[in-house]
Amino acid sequence: MIIVVKKDCEKKQLDNLTKWIKSLGLRIDLSKGDNSIIMGLIGDTSKVDIDLIRSLDIVDTVKRIQQPYKLANRQFHPEDTIVDVCGHKFGGNNFQLIAGPCSVENEKQIIGIAQAVKASGANILRGGAFKPRTSPYAFQGLKGEGLKLLLKAKAETGMPICTELMAEKYIDMFEDVDIIQIGARNMQNFDLLKAVGKLKKPVLLKRGLANTIEEWLMSAEYIMSEGNDQVILCERGIRTFEPMTRNTLDLSAIPLLRELTHLPIIVDPSHATGLNRLVDPMSLASVGAGADGLIIEVHNDPTHALCDGAQSLRPEQFDALVKKIDVMLPLVNRERK
Amino acid sequence: MIIVVKKDCEKKQLDNLTKWIKSLGLRIDLSKGDNSIIMGLIGDTSKVDIDLIRSLDIVDTVKRIQQPYKLANRQFHPEDTIVDVCGHKFGGNNFQLIAGPCSVENEKQIIGIAQAVKASGANILRGGAFKPRTSPYAFQGLKGEGLKLLLKAKAETGMPICTELMAEKYIDMFEDVDIIQIGARNMQNFDLLKAVGKLKKPVLLKRGLANTIEEWLMSAEYIMSEGNDQVILCERGIRTFEPMTRNTLDLSAIPLLRELTHLPIIVDPSHATGLNRLVDPMSLASVGAGADGLIIEVHNDPTHALCDGAQSLRPEQFDALVKKIDVMLPLVNRERK
Amino acid sequence: MIIVVKKDCEKKQLDNLTKWIKSLGLRIDLSKGDNSIIMGLIGDTSKVDIDLIRSLDIVDTVKRIQQPYKLANRQFHPEDTIVDVCGHKFGGNNFQLIAGPCSVENEKQIIGIAQAVKASGANILRGGAFKPRTSPYAFQGLKGEGLKLLLKAKAETGMPICTELMAEKYIDMFEDVDIIQIGARNMQNFDLLKAVGKLKKPVLLKRGLANTIEEWLMSAEYIMSEGNDQVILCERGIRTFEPMTRNTLDLSAIPLLRELTHLPIIVDPSHATGLNRLVDPMSLASVGAGADGLIIEVHNDPTHALCDGAQSLRPEQFDALVKKIDVMLPLVNRERK
Amino acid sequence: MIIVVKKDCEKKQLDNLTKWIKSLGLRIDLSKGDNSIIMGLIGDTSKVDIDLIRSLDIVDTVKRIQQPYKLANRQFHPEDTIVDVCGHKFGGNNFQLIAGPCSVENEKQIIGIAQAVKASGANILRGGAFKPRTSPYAFQGLKGEGLKLLLKAKAETGMPICTELMAEKYIDMFEDVDIIQIGARNMQNFDLLKAVGKLKKPVLLKRGLANTIEEWLMSAEYIMSEGNDQVILCERGIRTFEPMTRNTLDLSAIPLLRELTHLPIIVDPSHATGLNRLVDPMSLASVGAGADGLIIEVHNDPTHALCDGAQSLRPEQFDALVKKIDVMLPLVNRERK
Repeated sequence: MIIVVKKDCEKKQLDNLTKWIKSLGLRIDLSKGDNSIIMGLIGDTSKVDIDLIRSLDIVDTVKRIQQPYKLANRQFHPEDTIVDVCGHKFGGNNFQLIAGPCSVENEKQIIGIAQAVKASGANILRGGAFKPRTSPYAFQGLKGEGLKLLLKAKAETGMPICTELMAEKYIDMFEDVDIIQIGARNMQNFDLLKAVGKLKKPVLLKRGLANTIEEWLMSAEYIMSEGNDQVILCERGIRTFEPMTRNTLDLSAIPLLRELTHLPIIVDPSHATGLNRLVDPMSLASVGAGADGLIIEVHNDPTHALCDGAQSLRPEQFDALVKKIDVMLPLVNRERK
Repeated sequence: MIIVVKKDCEKKQLDNLTKWIKSLGLRIDLSKGDNSIIMGLIGDTSKVDIDLIRSLDIVDTVKRIQQPYKLANRQFHPEDTIVDVCGHKFGGNNFQLIAGPCSVENEKQIIGIAQAVKASGANILRGGAFKPRTSPYAFQGLKGEGLKLLLKAKAETGMPICTELMAEKYIDMFEDVDIIQIGARNMQNFDLLKAVGKLKKPVLLKRGLANTIEEWLMSAEYIMSEGNDQVILCERGIRTFEPMTRNTLDLSAIPLLRELTHLPIIVDPSHATGLNRLVDPMSLASVGAGADGLIIEVHNDPTHALCDGAQSLRPEQFDALVKKIDVMLPLVNRERK
Repeated sequence: MIIVVKKDCEKKQLDNLTKWIKSLGLRIDLSKGDNSIIMGLIGDTSKVDIDLIRSLDIVDTVKRIQQPYKLANRQFHPEDTIVDVCGHKFGGNNFQLIAGPCSVENEKQIIGIAQAVKASGANILRGGAFKPRTSPYAFQGLKGEGLKLLLKAKAETGMPICTELMAEKYIDMFEDVDIIQIGARNMQNFDLLKAVGKLKKPVLLKRGLANTIEEWLMSAEYIMSEGNDQVILCERGIRTFEPMTRNTLDLSAIPLLRELTHLPIIVDPSHATGLNRLVDPMSLASVGAGADGLIIEVHNDPTHALCDGAQSLRPEQFDALVKKIDVMLPLVNRERK
Repeated sequence: MIIVVKKDCEKKQLDNLTKWIKSLGLRIDLSKGDNSIIMGLIGDTSKVDIDLIRSLDIVDTVKRIQQPYKLANRQFHPEDTIVDVCGHKFGGNNFQLIAGPCSVENEKQIIGIAQAVKASGANILRGGAFKPRTSPYAFQGLKGEGLKLLLKAKAETGMPICTELMAEKYIDMFEDVDIIQIGARNMQNFDLLKAVGKLKKPVLLKRGLANTIEEWLMSAEYIMSEGNDQVILCERGIRTFEPMTRNTLDLSAIPLLRELTHLPIIVDPSHATGLNRLVDPMSLASVGAGADGLIIEVHNDPTHALCDGAQSLRPEQFDALVKKIDVMLPLVNRERK
């Protein structure tokens, strides 16, 4: 349920209303629009007397929200949420590029790639230190050592870093990570979501292999309900019957989410397609669909990458792609800063 | 198997080779590239002595083709196929727009919409006369009467028409139809494919609800194997678990098909999403992905449309969309003519 | 909408009600239950004054039917439909076995297999004369010649035959076929459904590759709305992401359909799994789920079968399976006759 | 790779071979068959000289294993694994029933249901203390309090308990839990799998919403590679396009897994279908398919259950089902003990 309150209302009346609502055991999420204040109510609103509230002077409108997500709901928060990562913004009319290798392999590799992608226009560096592998025998990532190397690259280039957190027990090691990524396979790892929800740090929430848009927003809701509203959604393809691509990139999720939520949405065309030669066209398609950014795998030597080389772009390919994206951005009212 | 023959070879030697291959019971599909002639062999090529062929003077290279589709295979035919519909071309660096209502309802409606979309930039008019409905009790289309009205609109505006053929018995009624559409539910109606394969008329082949890209190309192969190579593929979304959209638009199919086949590929964002407000972003995304065109539903009064009103654009919305598309086309090396 | 009329009502009053309903442009489907007559109304029942009807003496209850299928709906027809094929019954507490090769190859093969499966307990012979092949280059079946061979086997063994009809133009050739099969890829070939709906011959309607249970029942509705209520549904697996089986056999469809419809339902474990070693366990599972029968591929020489050998059982394997099924049938209140 | 060694070989020669293999950096998993010893090699076996090994006296055969799972692979371990839970066995020719409410609500409820299902034949009690809920606002379970109540029911009835562990941080609280369940949404929570792999306690591993059979076995491999081979697999339905059931129960997974792995496999028909009236037929179907057991939700008052009431059986329904199952078990060579 949302209560739209007139912006010029008396503070005392607003306080009374707030107190009464809380006495019903409900939480209030406040959002300021242009000419109104939106009070989003969370909890069992079935007992709220909607007509009573409507009758109050300061109340403009009251409306029941059908969707199970509230904090993530654009009706609770009409303005786009802007997630600021060391000055680089996601959301609104911004467009951000996150790039880097699938996994951190060694110092030379990570710093080299960081410098290359930064020069091309990526503001944020990605790299896996903890790798989710289907097989226990596959390379699991350099872990703590990988995080250290990412931080070296950050020191060297000034680029904020985005890397995946796979379990709550590692949270302390992520102190200096700028964006914590929650992987597709952990999209419904509810305890992990609550844990990152308690942090004051941006979270990149990847859609699960076969999770609906509603489930995805409920996972964002888990994070936000613990106090962290700096959530960036990331579409990375869903599982379907088509075997030619690793996943099926669901770009209609972008405009749909734009309506339903105020959170920024980016796209991972690398994991979605699994084929580097599809990254260019799907990146341009993502821009056309209205994405707030892209997260792209770049490796200087894809054939010898420790994982996912087949979907990585070489630095020069990434550079060429950014140039194409830059020509397209004005058409969709976006800019890279 | 393809045999690349040197372009300047002696005709007599080429004839000898051709005769010998045919004596093995194989069909030959000839394609001329810039500096070579490509002989595509169709049939049981396992008995062909590949080394023997390689040893011939006139032969440049020989290669076994793994994919089951041959005529539709870009390796058989490296050049883009251009499908010319009354002067309007699909393929190459062209971009075409097909627009019109989901079904033909009456003369005023179809002529009105035709005039509107033509003014906005659509070169070809779509409209359903025979409607595939899940329910036998739903409006099945005006059928023969619908075709007549489409032809009136064609006479009135000069626009070629594209409409769905649902069964072989109606083929004679489609004499004056310019593009025959094969609907998603008939993508594997093999007898129907063979029937349109015998015509000398462009066919718009929609992807089936849950058909793989390979099955789709094999259906194109059915049509082409009967002699008709004027096939335009149309991606219209595939069936997945996500309930928010009618289907899931699979845009990575575009660049994938670009590699695998020489046939033009367009997108139907209306049926794919089922929601008119997603048509704009998905149309722009399709352009970004490299599509050769779009087929969009437009209705002057969507709330009262006899079917699929929810996904139709109003003429003014279509007009605004075309303007946006036009700004984007140069970026992807396309032009509307 | 269904109107339950008291069984002992005056014929004159029933005739009046019937006439009035028809005057509203509605069709009536009559079904006799134990102590009532059920009038199922088909058409736009929104204008029917439900309270008026309720007030009539002869009327017991009136109820709106939400589902789009009516004739196929168990609420229209509470009794199980029994489809009688030359004395062999599908539905009720019967259990039927249909068996035979994927395609008819030659006289010796089809007669030999017919005799073998008959001896083992199959009452009906299957065999493909017209084969739906993904590739135009694959064996398309012996067609008319194949039908002749099936009829020879019928003459030889007395077994009724079940074979697939792929296009309306072949209908006359199916004069002596006892069960006309509509394949998965034609489940929404609406013109074909209407065509077999006009016949007085049992139809085996296979579920489409990715069609919902509701769409499946609407396809049965297409057939029934033309006058043919002898429809047997056949679950043959649906398309999913799992690559290890050809399709995913959806056995929960059996009990679900049992509730929703009065039509008999059988299972095809051969095409569903694509692996002969899964046919036994999935057949027993089908019996446990409450299926009315099975249609199983049997070939005397699977490694040399012209199609689908990998999923065929040898005659001795089929024989062993039938014995296991027979032990299980009493537990689910079924018998083979 | 597996090396089959003759059972009567000299210990000294076997030791030499073992030492040499380990020197290559490989792990060895030993399994004793009837007349041979199977050495399963884990690690990078590409460098192993297969012909050299074949030439050894004590070696019977050597074979490369294609599948990525080794410890879970039946080729590594031809005998069925029997998981013993306080004397109740899963696997071999045993059949086990686990039953109980979706979540533990209070002492009276859990003890009452435990007594009822025990009397009916369930040997193991299930009940959720930690509930995975799509929404953060939904009942999350009684947690530690719930575990205590389960242990009370265990003390009262003697029934071992099976309950879900959602995060590694709770592991110590599961000291007295007899079977630790890993839920569908955590099937690829790799750190959690490794954590339970370090325990000496049976693990019930549910298949993920949209995970392939191969991924499922690789998750079992994660657990086993840490030392815990007491893994019971549980099929609970997969996500598909069909909206009528909560998931689509994939029963062909049972016989497939029977071939590929030596681990026991049970079925959860409650979560798979989401509808209590489908539990009976799908349970019988599971028996027919060769399952090693069932885990079924039972609640004394389903309409007021705190979650998933719609799929729960009442105690008397469960009792009736067990009787039907018991009649069927001899047919599939199983017994309940």
